[in-house]
Amino acid sequence: MIDETYMELALQLAEKTLGQTSPNPVVGAVVVKDGKVVGLGAHLQPGDAHAEVIALEMASEKAKDATLYVTLEPCSHYGKTPPCVEKIITNGLKRVVIATLDPHEKVNGQGVKRLIEAGIDVKVGVLEEKAVLLNQFFFHYIKTNLPYITLKAAMSLDGKIATKTGESKWITNQEAREDVHHLRKTHDAILVGINTVLEDNPSLTARFPDTGKHPIRIILDTHLRTPIDSTVVTDNQVETWIFVGKEVRREQMENFADFQQVTIIQLPSEKIDIKEILHQLGEREITSLFVEGGAEIHGSFLKEGLFQQVMMYIAPKLIGGRNAPTVFGGEGIEKMADVFNLQFTEIEQLGKDLKIIAVKKEDTNVYGNC
Amino acid sequence: MIDETYMELALQLAEKTLGQTSPNPVVGAVVVKDGKVVGLGAHLQPGDAHAEVIALEMASEKAKDATLYVTLEPCSHYGKTPPCVEKIITNGLKRVVIATLDPHEKVNGQGVKRLIEAGIDVKVGVLEEKAVLLNQFFFHYIKTNLPYITLKAAMSLDGKIATKTGESKWITNQEAREDVHHLRKTHDAILVGINTVLEDNPSLTARFPDTGKHPIRIILDTHLRTPIDSTVVTDNQVETWIFVGKEVRREQMENFADFQQVTIIQLPSEKIDIKEILHQLGEREITSLFVEGGAEIHGSFLKEGLFQQVMMYIAPKLIGGRNAPTVFGGEGIEKMADVFNLQFTEIEQLGKDLKIIAVKKEDTNVYGNC
Amino acid sequence: MIDETYMELALQLAEKTLGQTSPNPVVGAVVVKDGKVVGLGAHLQPGDAHAEVIALEMASEKAKDATLYVTLEPCSHYGKTPPCVEKIITNGLKRVVIATLDPHEKVNGQGVKRLIEAGIDVKVGVLEEKAVLLNQFFFHYIKTNLPYITLKAAMSLDGKIATKTGESKWITNQEAREDVHHLRKTHDAILVGINTVLEDNPSLTARFPDTGKHPIRIILDTHLRTPIDSTVVTDNQVETWIFVGKEVRREQMENFADFQQVTIIQLPSEKIDIKEILHQLGEREITSLFVEGGAEIHGSFLKEGLFQQVMMYIAPKLIGGRNAPTVFGGEGIEKMADVFNLQFTEIEQLGKDLKIIAVKKEDTNVYGNC
Amino acid sequence: MIDETYMELALQLAEKTLGQTSPNPVVGAVVVKDGKVVGLGAHLQPGDAHAEVIALEMASEKAKDATLYVTLEPCSHYGKTPPCVEKIITNGLKRVVIATLDPHEKVNGQGVKRLIEAGIDVKVGVLEEKAVLLNQFFFHYIKTNLPYITLKAAMSLDGKIATKTGESKWITNQEAREDVHHLRKTHDAILVGINTVLEDNPSLTARFPDTGKHPIRIILDTHLRTPIDSTVVTDNQVETWIFVGKEVRREQMENFADFQQVTIIQLPSEKIDIKEILHQLGEREITSLFVEGGAEIHGSFLKEGLFQQVMMYIAPKLIGGRNAPTVFGGEGIEKMADVFNLQFTEIEQLGKDLKIIAVKKEDTNVYGNC
Ligand SMILES: [Zn+2]
Ligand SMILES: [Zn+2]
Ligand SMILES: [Zn+2]
Ligand SMILES: [Zn+2]
Repeated sequence: MIDETYMELALQLAEKTLGQTSPNPVVGAVVVKDGKVVGLGAHLQPGDAHAEVIALEMASEKAKDATLYVTLEPCSHYGKTPPCVEKIITNGLKRVVIATLDPHEKVNGQGVKRLIEAGIDVKVGVLEEKAVLLNQFFFHYIKTNLPYITLKAAMSLDGKIATKTGESKWITNQEAREDVHHLRKTHDAILVGINTVLEDNPSLTARFPDTGKHPIRIILDTHLRTPIDSTVVTDNQVETWIFVGKEVRREQMENFADFQQVTIIQLPSEKIDIKEILHQLGEREITSLFVEGGAEIHGSFLKEGLFQQVMMYIAPKLIGGRNAPTVFGGEGIEKMADVFNLQFTEIEQLGKDLKIIAVKKEDTNVYGNC
Repeated sequence: MIDETYMELALQLAEKTLGQTSPNPVVGAVVVKDGKVVGLGAHLQPGDAHAEVIALEMASEKAKDATLYVTLEPCSHYGKTPPCVEKIITNGLKRVVIATLDPHEKVNGQGVKRLIEAGIDVKVGVLEEKAVLLNQFFFHYIKTNLPYITLKAAMSLDGKIATKTGESKWITNQEAREDVHHLRKTHDAILVGINTVLEDNPSLTARFPDTGKHPIRIILDTHLRTPIDSTVVTDNQVETWIFVGKEVRREQMENFADFQQVTIIQLPSEKIDIKEILHQLGEREITSLFVEGGAEIHGSFLKEGLFQQVMMYIAPKLIGGRNAPTVFGGEGIEKMADVFNLQFTEIEQLGKDLKIIAVKKEDTNVYGNC
Repeated sequence: MIDETYMELALQLAEKTLGQTSPNPVVGAVVVKDGKVVGLGAHLQPGDAHAEVIALEMASEKAKDATLYVTLEPCSHYGKTPPCVEKIITNGLKRVVIATLDPHEKVNGQGVKRLIEAGIDVKVGVLEEKAVLLNQFFFHYIKTNLPYITLKAAMSLDGKIATKTGESKWITNQEAREDVHHLRKTHDAILVGINTVLEDNPSLTARFPDTGKHPIRIILDTHLRTPIDSTVVTDNQVETWIFVGKEVRREQMENFADFQQVTIIQLPSEKIDIKEILHQLGEREITSLFVEGGAEIHGSFLKEGLFQQVMMYIAPKLIGGRNAPTVFGGEGIEKMADVFNLQFTEIEQLGKDLKIIAVKKEDTNVYGNC
Repeated sequence: MIDETYMELALQLAEKTLGQTSPNPVVGAVVVKDGKVVGLGAHLQPGDAHAEVIALEMASEKAKDATLYVTLEPCSHYGKTPPCVEKIITNGLKRVVIATLDPHEKVNGQGVKRLIEAGIDVKVGVLEEKAVLLNQFFFHYIKTNLPYITLKAAMSLDGKIATKTGESKWITNQEAREDVHHLRKTHDAILVGINTVLEDNPSLTARFPDTGKHPIRIILDTHLRTPIDSTVVTDNQVETWIFVGKEVRREQMENFADFQQVTIIQLPSEKIDIKEILHQLGEREITSLFVEGGAEIHGSFLKEGLFQQVMMYIAPKLIGGRNAPTVFGGEGIEKMADVFNLQFTEIEQLGKDLKIIAVKKEDTNVYGNC
């Protein structure tokens, strides 16, 4: 029970840094000596000191014979910083309590092994489920080298995203829109299709009060139709990556050269291939992706099953109409046997609207036993 | 608080008879003398004694100087039974506590007036909100002479009711299907379009264990295409009413003459007019209607705003496809300004599925102040 | 689930008659045919019809092939009324669902046996725990022929019932005192010692609004010191039974002859023997006894372990003082090994006070497996 | 809402150091820049860096234009460390959010004033109630120069602490006893009378697993009867202070000279005066005192109203006996008008026992509006 109490504090430290450590995981650490907290820390951003290091330095000589609580297995390899396990050993800790192992190939049990060899008492698995959930983006990325994908849409109770004439303004209310801004902040990147840019000229930033951190904006734009004066090009708020097909000419792309935040990435194929995009995003250390549509983009991701969770905002409205557009465009499946099975994990009332989160069934608890 | 305690019992009595008293309301009654319950009753079915009468007869001479708790204003007119207010007065009750007035034009305050004139202490409004909700079908029917309409559908999380090829089996699970059977039982009639009959040959009964009571089955069938050997024609379980257009010939209809439970009702128009149907159902004392689709039927009700609540079962599945059918067929609205606004009143998890109930906004609490 | 639904209604019917059926149990009954409630009833008071009979008569010919839900095994012996099982058989019921068997020696499985022999489908044990708890006084009485005893007291947080000078007014607040009046109503009799009569001249009635029913008042008064003008003698509200020792003279007792509600019961011993009192109360069909003290009376009951539950009102006050009186007078135990072990079953905040109910451990769930 | 989120983290940091910072308050701090946590800290023990300093050093140059969340007003005076407000100003913070002002005379608004003068945007009162409750010992001490006093006792449901023969073993169960050990740890000192030492020879330490921190042990022992071989003298686990009357001779006291952890404090009076003791404890920076009895000690504190809260463990047992001892010895009050009024603030079930916390009424929310 004592172990859970201090691990809870370590998890709270980690939780508050969600969205600022990518591509690293969030990590919290607490050092306890003789029933007193003598050090605490969190990994704050890439390049900064690891959580354990901050906590151990605060504890200084009191770390000797103390217990370290850390939400993720300490690293054992030389990266941007020297390995934490060596610091733990040098500082004379007596016991290390770890919430969950680090699935990263360079760690993955090596940290624990090194600590045990050094004669330190190690316990793994305290509040593990919470720790795994907290780093679900990171765990998915480490395992697959691809970003964790959230498909997000807003619809009426009858599943429409617009009227038959395409009007779609204000389906959901203020609370739901604020929630979206909050969620954007927790993802590394946000993705939309060119049609969304052309129709709405959105800024795609996390307009959260007091928030300077925005996800990178990604536009899928086969023919590079993004207007040179669109907000995502000119506002200079955060990077915009535009993926284009191989037929786009060099001169066309050079038009965007003056905008330092804009990067145009040309694919080797004529059409945009979602898998290729995700592969490239993984290479660029995008660990999580928030896909906001429109319908054809959502349809492309669905077609290949390329998503981990779906976030649906449902407004208490009926639009009707057999030709009014729905969330997923594209072909769709033919047989119910091919349906994508999900599991509802959260249902929340946001003002007058509902928010429903569902995860793809095969992904549920994938890391539960690592 | 004492009044609430006994009214709660009266409401519990009324509640358990939901679905068996139509076109009458459900009513419960309790007689209390010197802190003891000396009589209790509920109106069990049309033609049976009123709740007050049962309770008063159980109390017999103890009713003198006692208090009567009744969930709906006692009747003051001579109907199938003599007026309850006269029995209350004759039996010497001292006090009558009423949850809510009876909106029926023949009562509507007359009962209370008569009791007060007779020198009885009357209190109205104890647990009124519950009492009104319990009889919402009846209240709506009395006010409009039209049935209370529930639109019911099952869809995937992305708003589809079938794949693009029309396959729709097993969208929702066992719990949701059982819930539908339970709800059918609480409505007077269930309505589907001819396509549903042709495609599924359903029985449309309330296959609830131990249940003999079924709603009347109503088929909208412009050209009388209902097969003579379909289940709703031949199973003899409960009445089936088939509404047809004026072009259907007499001989066609006479084919069904042998089936005593089947009634064919010819409309004066070529096409089926929902308003006319509802008018006829009102005439035939159908106070509540459970509309199960398909999509074009739902679309017809939606188009004219002819519904009071929507009951949506949502499965944790994604079907996708821009041409996969959705809940509401028909034209649909053009401008978001014309959207039908609802209010979510219930969200429930049924096994792996969700059940969402929403009421049409203009109907919300309409009777709250009567 | 269906069975639970209707049994719940039967239990609600029974519950609302708590306190008015003694020495009989509370019983509720519901008749269901084809998914409709066609009859309902409760046993209202001793001598009145049994719950099943009321429900069956309401159902009349609809009882044929119906299901009867009843909270207690139907009787099989000829008592004040003919046996219910015969009526059930005669009326052609198809199925009988029973919450719990009747422990009364004249029933105790005989009712079920007779029904099964008659070819009726019988199910026992639906919501049994609730049904047993509802009739805990009756079950205890049937098993022991003695009343179920509740010891009730009010004290400060430091366990005092008065200051060292004996002042005890208003230890608890209005909410707690109202709760006591409510509880008095649920017991057959209330018992106090002569000192309480001499000091407080209480009325000992259930001053609950609208309540005519009071428990019988019992005074333990060895030397018959109850003043002839005390409220319990003169108010004529409810019977008062005064237990006196064998040395009280006949003339002394005859002084009370004019008060019709007062009965003086002389014991064969000089001192008052609690066991003898309880035996006599059992003979007089007192099934439940609410013991309100004072401290020496409570001490007498405690000494012999003669109680089933303790109801303690605790005020947020400190009185202090090594000689301030506490709840239980008398000798008390010597060794902790002899302590009376209880189990807390209810903790409730009543305004600023606490109410704690604890049952004697050996009595807990005694009937849970019958 | 954003402010509450980060202040919550600051409070969590502070909370985990409860019991290790006395006589200083617990304080947590978080630095946030552009929606990211860039620094966090807590005051760990007396003499260590203040929470703000730790957080600001972690943030280093990122503190410029950032927001600081701190649970208590930053200090403005030169103490063991330079004033935090100067560091905040120097580091270029843009905004400071404070849960509550520091009532210490050297701060008490001066910190806020200095920040505002320096042009920093200051907000006070975010989650203030929680922050005040967290430091209730400190706030009381600063205001009164006396320790916050908790009277703790364990009793049976009938208010006894032992049988009439004095046997008191095992009134409460394991869970309750563990809870006591946990609470001892949160107080600076624990106090018992000499009788408790003579009867039980207790160790009075916080036998919490993994816990090295113990409260100072205080014995009230007018005639210095503490045995030289008693556990509190010989175990060397933590300091023991023995308060004795003026008649104790020097030689007697010198017997204890070898025990470095034992301090004997002679009072100027013959008898022990609680007020004087508290005054001396205040001088020695004891901010909180856990009074464990026995009954006469508790009675002495009660007599003069010298307590802030009462912690009562109630076992589901009845001991009975008019002479069995109760929680408070001493004289006690004479009139109910003089009763000490409390307010229940917490009721918790601990295994089979109850734990009840009540605060003295006049102290309730005293600091709520500072
Ligand atoms: Zn590391
Ligand atoms: Zn009537
Ligand atoms: Zn019977
Ligand atoms: Zn400071």
